[in-house]
Amino acid sequence: MNQGGYERHEFRRAILKSIVEAQLLRVLVLGGDGYLGWPTALHLSDRGHETAVLDNFARRRYDEELGVQSLVAIEDLDVRAAAWKEVSGKEIPVFTGDLLDADFVYDVLRDFAPDAVVHFAEQRAAPYSMIDREHAVYTQHNNVVGTLNLLFAIAETNPDIHLVKLGTMGEYGTPNIDIEEGWLDVEHNGRKDRVLYPKRPGSFYHLSKVHDSHNMEFACRVWGLRATDLNQGVVYGQRTPQTALDPRLATRFDYDAVFGTVLNRFVIQAVLGLPLTVYGTGGQTRGLIDIRDTVECIRLAVENPAETGEFRVFNQMTESMSVKEIAELVAEHFPGPVQIEHLDNPRVEKPEHYYNVKHTGLIELGLKPHLLSDTLIESMFPVVEENKHRVEPDKMLPRVNWTRAKN
Amino acid sequence: MNQGGYERHEFRRAILKSIVEAQLLRVLVLGGDGYLGWPTALHLSDRGHETAVLDNFARRRYDEELGVQSLVAIEDLDVRAAAWKEVSGKEIPVFTGDLLDADFVYDVLRDFAPDAVVHFAEQRAAPYSMIDREHAVYTQHNNVVGTLNLLFAIAETNPDIHLVKLGTMGEYGTPNIDIEEGWLDVEHNGRKDRVLYPKRPGSFYHLSKVHDSHNMEFACRVWGLRATDLNQGVVYGQRTPQTALDPRLATRFDYDAVFGTVLNRFVIQAVLGLPLTVYGTGGQTRGLIDIRDTVECIRLAVENPAETGEFRVFNQMTESMSVKEIAELVAEHFPGPVQIEHLDNPRVEKPEHYYNVKHTGLIELGLKPHLLSDTLIESMFPVVEENKHRVEPDKMLPRVNWTRAKN
Ligand SMILES: NC(=O)c1ccc[n+]([C@@H]2O[C@H](COP(=O)([O-])OP(=O)(O)OC[C@H]3O[C@@H](n4cnc5c(N)ncnc54)[C@H](O)[C@@H]3O)[C@@H](O)[C@H]2O)c1
Ligand SMILES: NC(=O)c1ccc[n+]([C@@H]2O[C@H](COP(=O)([O-])OP(=O)(O)OC[C@H]3O[C@@H](n4cnc5c(N)ncnc54)[C@H](O)[C@@H]3O)[C@@H](O)[C@H]2O)c1
Repeated sequence: MNQGGYERHEFRRAILKSIVEAQLLRVLVLGGDGYLGWPTALHLSDRGHETAVLDNFARRRYDEELGVQSLVAIEDLDVRAAAWKEVSGKEIPVFTGDLLDADFVYDVLRDFAPDAVVHFAEQRAAPYSMIDREHAVYTQHNNVVGTLNLLFAIAETNPDIHLVKLGTMGEYGTPNIDIEEGWLDVEHNGRKDRVLYPKRPGSFYHLSKVHDSHNMEFACRVWGLRATDLNQGVVYGQRTPQTALDPRLATRFDYDAVFGTVLNRFVIQAVLGLPLTVYGTGGQTRGLIDIRDTVECIRLAVENPAETGEFRVFNQMTESMSVKEIAELVAEHFPGPVQIEHLDNPRVEKPEHYYNVKHTGLIELGLKPHLLSDTLIESMFPVVEENKHRVEPDKMLPRVNWTRAKN
Repeated sequence: MNQGGYERHEFRRAILKSIVEAQLLRVLVLGGDGYLGWPTALHLSDRGHETAVLDNFARRRYDEELGVQSLVAIEDLDVRAAAWKEVSGKEIPVFTGDLLDADFVYDVLRDFAPDAVVHFAEQRAAPYSMIDREHAVYTQHNNVVGTLNLLFAIAETNPDIHLVKLGTMGEYGTPNIDIEEGWLDVEHNGRKDRVLYPKRPGSFYHLSKVHDSHNMEFACRVWGLRATDLNQGVVYGQRTPQTALDPRLATRFDYDAVFGTVLNRFVIQAVLGLPLTVYGTGGQTRGLIDIRDTVECIRLAVENPAETGEFRVFNQMTESMSVKEIAELVAEHFPGPVQIEHLDNPRVEKPEHYYNVKHTGLIELGLKPHLLSDTLIESMFPVVEENKHRVEPDKMLPRVNWTRAKN
């Protein structure tokens, strides 16, 4: 090989190396024992990223507190990680600890040295945050202080780490104008600015996410951090290509009135022969997303990081539907009789409202949405069928009321 | 007196009684040991309202922590209340405790049964919140959880209580559009809504106020509470008609770089023959208000409560000035030579920016502003002169930097 050939060869090697390096990242998934954190960790690991998980198992303690459990039995996190090693040959290191423990957070960031941190680790049920004062305070404290600790730890250990943080579509409420992706171009009295999209959230939980977003935007502005805030819609589904590989890899499937999300709960009610419980008229509209799209959105955000100093926001949802439409869709596709029952809405929300959400950011990064179809819903029925002996039907009745404040 | 005459008499008595009752309220001042809380309590008491104060003396502990003290010596709260009794004949009951202690908050509301609660009781220094992670977390926890406890306590004990809450003009940041009073009418893609004014605050302290505002708006919406959020400008001055009655009634006067507000600090620097320390170019503009107007604004808000379910916002400031202009004004009116020194700005903020604030709400309720004049500034010089032996000049140098995150 002549000198020029050798140089070309080296040059190509360097390019190839940089491509591989750019694509294979070290990713730390906070809340990696949860409904979405675990399948996301598997998806990222499967893709070749060095993936680790962190959790304090708070979610498993809420189950005990409320006397509920996931419809599908789930393994301990260590067992899950070992099963993944068996199935895929890949390690997922487990860090056990609390985001409220700042020293722990700093230590993990120094130890694992991630390129990106995906932050799912918050109390995430609106009704849980509305149980009483203590649960409201717990939720805001856990979520806001956990995220503050993380922002400081990133800024101090490596401000280049890309923070991918889960927010919720519920932060926006139901404004009478189009919902943009986090920022709004405003013209007012003949002058213009680009401002954080105004929020009017519907619970102390949703409020905690609004607080997080403001804190994060500030950290990007003053410390030059890079962050992606994902305002996610209601997630449905329980299987991803990776969790389906082995029963020990299953993720949780909540059906109770506190942690169960609406579509999942309706599917379970249908299979059990219980009426689908629609709150109020069911005219309230939600943004939705398939769990397989959630994990893919996270991958896309991680692989296409925000710029230094950028607070980037995506609306992570693929379609909108009213609660009544969701109930009707489930009823239509269930191979048997289904009743729909309207309960007094325990929440305070507008029964009918405008809802038009922009959600093109993730599509532009390459997301190919799985839209809600009969096949998806039908594929959920057997999962429920297999596990229906585990259901406690009384846990599905709403027991938290928005209009009553309790100490 | 004939029958008709008697009825007329009774009727007039009832009307008079209702006027008196409507005007004389039971008001609980949270943070009543602070710079503004104490003079406000005196002003309300002087006006005839049954006024009580609550404080946990956190502010006096920050002084110890930072090794600073108020330029003007202040008495203990019990001594102050006793002095007021002596001077005016009026009682101001003192409740000692922490808003973070929810049981205490519930007990005080049940015990004192206020018509209005004026909430000053927060950690209020932006630089303090930026010292390090611990101080940022302390600030957000203290402020947000204290306010949450209060919201629950009001909702549960008596949702009719009018909450008058101090926010700050710093919540808005410096948008390129006019700053409205808390709410903004937006037109977007041909549709309209009235939304919370978008905020872009400049410190973890200012962020805590934004979080409070969101939590309060929600509490008004779901529980029908009535609240007035006062986005206050930087306060200057140290005397009110009531505090001037007796030296034991004096309020604090902070000059250190952490708690001293800009105009007060400049006056003190001028008297001491120290250069006025302007951060950066001094082009950054602030909303200002005289302490005599602060106490009057609170009275007006208390006597004209928000409606049930209303989240009402006023911008509590009377004029805007750039930091450079404030320095020049002080220099101009000081009877001696004054140097102005430009230090590197320790904060992250725009050096020059648009700033146009609407603040008509309180004027409409009857506020007659004291605008910043030479006489005011000149009246502050003797207060400083008398106390200048207490100054530790090194405490005036900025020691907190916005761009460095520290654990
Ligand atoms: N599930 C949905 O439909 C949905 C919709 C929108 C947004 N989100 C957001 O996505 C994220 C994940 O949701 P999920 O459904 O997987 O919730 P989940 O409760 O199943 O998972 C959250 C995990 O975080 C952990 N955690 C909580 N606080 C922690 C702390 N202080 N330290 C360490 N670990 C902690 C919990 O133990 C749990 O395993 C949440 O932030 C949620 O708000 C979820
Ligand atoms: N001083 C200003 O220029 C200014 C400007 C805008 C807004 N404000 C707001 O006005 C309010 C009062 O400001 P200030 O200058 O009088 O402050 P300050 O620090 O002098 O007074 C606040 C008082 O609240 C008490 N407090 C704090 N946390 C408490 C808790 N958890 N429980 C009970 N008491 C607690 C403190 O001990 C202190 O006495 C604050 O909310 C502040 O944000 C002040």
